[in-house]
Amino acid sequence: MSDDERQQRHKRAMQRLKSHVDERVARATEERGLVLVFTGNGKGKTTAAWGTVTRALGYGYNVGVVQFIKGTWECGERERLEHDEHLQVHVMATGFTWDTQDKASDRAACQAVWAQARTLLEDDSVYLVVLDELTYMLKFGYLDIQDVLHALGRRPTEQTVIITGRNAHRDLLSVADTVTEMQEVRHAFNEGLKARRGIDY
Amino acid sequence: MSDDERQQRHKRAMQRLKSHVDERVARATEERGLVLVFTGNGKGKTTAAWGTVTRALGYGYNVGVVQFIKGTWECGERERLEHDEHLQVHVMATGFTWDTQDKASDRAACQAVWAQARTLLEDDSVYLVVLDELTYMLKFGYLDIQDVLHALGRRPTEQTVIITGRNAHRDLLSVADTVTEMQEVRHAFNEGLKARRGIDY
Repeated sequence: MSDDERQQRHKRAMQRLKSHVDERVARATEERGLVLVFTGNGKGKTTAAWGTVTRALGYGYNVGVVQFIKGTWECGERERLEHDEHLQVHVMATGFTWDTQDKASDRAACQAVWAQARTLLEDDSVYLVVLDELTYMLKFGYLDIQDVLHALGRRPTEQTVIITGRNAHRDLLSVADTVTEMQEVRHAFNEGLKARRGIDY
Repeated sequence: MSDDERQQRHKRAMQRLKSHVDERVARATEERGLVLVFTGNGKGKTTAAWGTVTRALGYGYNVGVVQFIKGTWECGERERLEHDEHLQVHVMATGFTWDTQDKASDRAACQAVWAQARTLLEDDSVYLVVLDELTYMLKFGYLDIQDVLHALGRRPTEQTVIITGRNAHRDLLSVADTVTEMQEVRHAFNEGLKARRGIDY
């Protein structure tokens, strides 16, 4: 086959691909805020949520981030974006459950930060709400799935919500528009490599 | 079981978990830059890369992002961070292969942007390099896997590299320290929902 024939064949293949893509874009007509769930045991769930936060801030949208569990750690992305007037961050800040070892105080801390999440979920000036590590709150019983579904269902039409964490509750998955399962194929930490500042936290 | 017993049981379980976590942290002693691959067909690969960029910038590290394929689209995260003096972004900017429909010019554009990637991969003042959508360049034959492995292998010890894209080359996976497969469980686009500004791009 000559170079010219090869180029022609490439061109035809790309034209077919283009009409397939165009068709799919044309079929996607509904416009509203989404519920996205990033779950699974792999690296990238919270990171993808922060990537979306950066993206939304890039257009000047208001963003609210609620961090369950975490918050006592350093957090480069919070640091980088915290002076953005369009961003508010609420942090549970109790640290990990295996550090506090106290269920009652964990539950109270969770409920307090959930109240702030609910306020965001009722505010139609907020374009994106991130509920980071929420799934664990459901799993530990610190938060009721019905309360979460209710708040999601009543939120403003244009508002997108991202929920992250392993073992997402079945009912949460069923109300989500987009679900990505981040599967760990390999993790440096398990190979004896230390978590890195600016990369892992 | 009384509340007190329940709390005691919770505390014991958390203590066991804590010693497990502490043990794993203690075992992870090697410190160096990593190769991370975000692959799979689900949403979140590029987004997680940008999340890490934001994180690294949060500590004042130098970051280089090379975007293969993309670049003609609006991009909120590039917008949000582009004035950061610690960030440089190089973009192939030809648009998608199904738009250009010209293999020779795509290949030339890829090689030109790869030259910029190589410069970053030799620069020990750059803490994090993102090679966004690189996997397709290998798949289309615009870039040689040996060139990529060579550049990764020679890079500064402290430098972390993130590679994103579907269908990652087997040899790329084998040199990666961390691999996450972002699996699509559900995608709003397939349910007829339009891609959203500030969320999807």
